[in-house]
Amino acid sequence: MRRIKLEIAYDGTNYHGWQIQPNEITVEGVINQALSKLLQEDIAVIGASRTDAGVHAKGNVAVFDTETRIPAEKICLALNQHLPWDIRVQSSVEVSENFHPRKTKSKKIYEYSILNRSISLPTERLYSYFVYYNLNIDAMNEAAQFLVGEHDFKSFCSVKTQVLDTVREIYHLDVKKDGYMIRIEISGSGFLYNMVRIIAGTLIEVGRGMIAPQDMTRILKGLDRSLAGPTAPAHGLSLSRIDYDRER
Amino acid sequence: MRRIKLEIAYDGTNYHGWQIQPNEITVEGVINQALSKLLQEDIAVIGASRTDAGVHAKGNVAVFDTETRIPAEKICLALNQHLPWDIRVQSSVEVSENFHPRKTKSKKIYEYSILNRSISLPTERLYSYFVYYNLNIDAMNEAAQFLVGEHDFKSFCSVKTQVLDTVREIYHLDVKKDGYMIRIEISGSGFLYNMVRIIAGTLIEVGRGMIAPQDMTRILKGLDRSLAGPTAPAHGLSLSRIDYDRER
Repeated sequence: MRRIKLEIAYDGTNYHGWQIQPNEITVEGVINQALSKLLQEDIAVIGASRTDAGVHAKGNVAVFDTETRIPAEKICLALNQHLPWDIRVQSSVEVSENFHPRKTKSKKIYEYSILNRSISLPTERLYSYFVYYNLNIDAMNEAAQFLVGEHDFKSFCSVKTQVLDTVREIYHLDVKKDGYMIRIEISGSGFLYNMVRIIAGTLIEVGRGMIAPQDMTRILKGLDRSLAGPTAPAHGLSLSRIDYDRER
Repeated sequence: MRRIKLEIAYDGTNYHGWQIQPNEITVEGVINQALSKLLQEDIAVIGASRTDAGVHAKGNVAVFDTETRIPAEKICLALNQHLPWDIRVQSSVEVSENFHPRKTKSKKIYEYSILNRSISLPTERLYSYFVYYNLNIDAMNEAAQFLVGEHDFKSFCSVKTQVLDTVREIYHLDVKKDGYMIRIEISGSGFLYNMVRIIAGTLIEVGRGMIAPQDMTRILKGLDRSLAGPTAPAHGLSLSRIDYDRER
């Protein structure tokens, strides 16, 4: 048996998220079907990030074990032949049997895109959140820096979570202007349920002037979800990349 | 009666092009319906560019005559309330009754986007043409410059056209790299049927090394469609903007 690691890009628009669910089309489900058909084995991948319905990815990661003799690097192209165009495997490599996409230490990089102009643009609507209020990027960036480092992010976590330990570390958090698009780039070892979308929603409130940048300390310390801003919509979010310390 | 000029952006994915057709959903048809409903008049717009099925626009132009008392600038927002999200009017202004979107002299700017990497990216697939051959941008740019100026573009025109005069002027034609995207930007006073897509298809052949940049002169002078490259697919094309000399 060999363990193969896949890097997977997808357009989340037409999926009920990553994770397999009965009676719903999910990215994980479609990949399992395609792999099982290609390899003529019963394959169930283990995904790194169980992205929500509507969230996109450029580089989610999944692994599976197989007895196939197809060279690891060739699985990528062959698998894409069996996948719809809104899912594209970007690479396939053999990894150690000890490599686990959620347990092996990693850095996850997400990007949240905001289309900030007075009128929406149809060709951007599926991959960014349209906000017509003029957002102050300097204020958003100032607020963002209060979140960098290790903190208890309970205020930035959906109340639906079952996780008890809400301490996480954000490595970097930048707000950049790219034409009429505002890109929030965030990296960390791991994120709580809806954490990136709540951070984006809160930074948008800062950009509108509804929350002052210095208030971020109070919101963090309050450990109360109701203090932070709303959860920004899923379609603005994309999982850019996951970097692992080791794959062997 | 007042004449109102609209700037219109749309995602062409779900439309059978601009022009009204029986039994097909078209951008023109949807806009006429929305305007007629909003203004309670029977409105038929005159469009500047009758984009093909699948072609996108950031700034197509259309005019219509109305008896409404709604201020011209307010029509834009009100009209968007009646339109689907894949069509967004960007502006509405009153123009002279002599202004005609096809007859008034203008500069039209189109962009053709090529996703040039070894594996496609799902979130770019609807708005760019995926080409996995490694394209030589310098060669494409060199070839492009032979087309700038006034020429008979018969070789770059669909044989289906009924136009007799195939002389047109290209003001500028640039090929630029933007990450893994190659953008062909072209401007001219007007274009023949499929001309921009045939130019894009021919420049892609140059980028692959199938046609030498200097061959462009021979292709132009041959006045024969079969000498140029294939028609690049519609979904890579977007009408960026139309600049008019005058609106009054």
